[in-house]
Amino acid sequence: MSKGIAEVTENPERIAVELDASVTLCKNRIVIGEAGLTKKGAERSALIILNQRISLGELFLAAWSAKTIRICADGGANRLYEFFEGYDVTLRQNYIPDYIIGDLDSLKPDVKSYYASKGATIICQNSQYSTDFTKCIRLLSLHYNSSTFRDAVMMKLPEVNHGIEIEDGIQDLYNDMLKKYTTDILPIEVLAINAIGGRFDQTIHSITQLYKLRSTDPYLKLVYLTDTDIILLIPGGGTLLSYDSEFRDSCIGNCGLLPIGVPTTILETRGLKWDVRNWDTSIVTGNVSSSNRLAGRKRCYLNAGDDFVLNLEIFPEKLACYIKQSTRKLDPPRI
Amino acid sequence: MSKGIAEVTENPERIAVELDASVTLCKNRIVIGEAGLTKKGAERSALIILNQRISLGELFLAAWSAKTIRICADGGANRLYEFFEGYDVTLRQNYIPDYIIGDLDSLKPDVKSYYASKGATIICQNSQYSTDFTKCIRLLSLHYNSSTFRDAVMMKLPEVNHGIEIEDGIQDLYNDMLKKYTTDILPIEVLAINAIGGRFDQTIHSITQLYKLRSTDPYLKLVYLTDTDIILLIPGGGTLLSYDSEFRDSCIGNCGLLPIGVPTTILETRGLKWDVRNWDTSIVTGNVSSSNRLAGRKRCYLNAGDDFVLNLEIFPEKLACYIKQSTRKLDPPRI
Repeated sequence: MSKGIAEVTENPERIAVELDASVTLCKNRIVIGEAGLTKKGAERSALIILNQRISLGELFLAAWSAKTIRICADGGANRLYEFFEGYDVTLRQNYIPDYIIGDLDSLKPDVKSYYASKGATIICQNSQYSTDFTKCIRLLSLHYNSSTFRDAVMMKLPEVNHGIEIEDGIQDLYNDMLKKYTTDILPIEVLAINAIGGRFDQTIHSITQLYKLRSTDPYLKLVYLTDTDIILLIPGGGTLLSYDSEFRDSCIGNCGLLPIGVPTTILETRGLKWDVRNWDTSIVTGNVSSSNRLAGRKRCYLNAGDDFVLNLEIFPEKLACYIKQSTRKLDPPRI
Repeated sequence: MSKGIAEVTENPERIAVELDASVTLCKNRIVIGEAGLTKKGAERSALIILNQRISLGELFLAAWSAKTIRICADGGANRLYEFFEGYDVTLRQNYIPDYIIGDLDSLKPDVKSYYASKGATIICQNSQYSTDFTKCIRLLSLHYNSSTFRDAVMMKLPEVNHGIEIEDGIQDLYNDMLKKYTTDILPIEVLAINAIGGRFDQTIHSITQLYKLRSTDPYLKLVYLTDTDIILLIPGGGTLLSYDSEFRDSCIGNCGLLPIGVPTTILETRGLKWDVRNWDTSIVTGNVSSSNRLAGRKRCYLNAGDDFVLNLEIFPEKLACYIKQSTRKLDPPRI
């Protein structure tokens, strides 16, 4: 597939990646460990909670506080409610989602009335042609980009589903929104939890969304957080991945460059423990760079022929501290 | 990609799949729920335990008893040892692995001496160019197919690593074995646990092995078992998937046809809740059949242009009962 000779270079654990032309002129830039996870530069940001047990501990609360709005997908609200039982029930009232959306078949009545009484906007959407995750994503786009939607929600009319048609209302509003937009939509940082690690077809469905949203809703910067990993899409073509060295040194471990969906050629990497050039990678052949590491002190450059998935192993407790510190700097206590 | 018109048909929850020519003449046959999981027809079978916490409960013990040999990958032996702490410590002595293999960096000394004293064969292999999982797979091939290897192990010489060269001895013996084989190697049923659901690059590495072994070691019939799923490869071309209706009705829920690795066309399915024809499927486009179900009462026919991954959601307690019943029928109690 590739035209050059495949090369693999083993680097020291920490190296400098110079800012030469390939790196500074590259098309895609991702700042990981800041915009993706902390509040820095992410006014337009959301946490999406899907319907699996929340096993992130402190990291969950840190991620919550770093995001501007929070959306539960249907039974995800039960999981939020239950999280505090194993933690500190008195904290529950401080963690009220902005929205709960889905066909609401899974949402327990007592959880529904609790969050409704605390001001969450609960929207029923029955369509079986989109998943709860897609419903969250559509709602999120509307929250930031549709005054029609925001006006509807501001009316506080839960008894008529906030004036939103119960089957496909959110999808219809989203289609209207897209028609009206003439300029690029500003980026929204999205962190989703409970999307990976449950039933395997659901995990893979979540992975498909990384690829799909990049073409349908490129303004959504989607990152998955699990109790072992951060997972995101690296666009094909040159991508500069930046992070601060504290994040690199304390919060993350191994990484994998995962050509899920389509075999590709990794043309060049700079700043990995095992850098590659002209390296054909494919799930089918088993030629996949796993158990690799970010060696670049502050950045890493990745250039592949196609989009691929990157996972970064996390140390949850350390990452929780890091996010809390970063968020605190930006949210000084009110005196 | 496909040449015909894409069709999706919704079927009732249970339908008959007739044995016409396409089905009876199809190239690949998989009997799921018997050979893959129970002891039936699987004299040559193994359980591989990788290094993650064992969260299968009763299902783990049922799976253990249904297999002929058991192999722990390095720290997988710690997980086996620890499993009984949360269960019933007196049972530990009844579950002794046949082999422990790896560089043994993760194996705790007390666990090592416990299993050594109980007769487990512990083999050190330091090569960093193959994973612990690959080392298990090679060892398994040797156990069933290499008298040189079996003779070495029979000598019971742990102090000299059973006469096996410490770096690459297993790989070298495996290469020798392949050279000597002139006929097809008989199938070996392999059930692996703890391969999916941990660090994401390790999960994807496990998935690569499904594809890769099909070309390198097609006699190995590899199935992954997690606390939510059975995961296996469906070869490209027509595949008949058979199961008994009790297994279908009580042990499994949703399923997904997952083109991880390469986009493909599903030419035809018969016996799914949502059957498809000429249906292009790809992780990149998001066009993936997830949350589907096996509707065929005793069988299902799947015909795709390329290999793909199938997951079947499991109900662990019911599956444990099913495996135990099937195994009991074959192993009547000694009087």
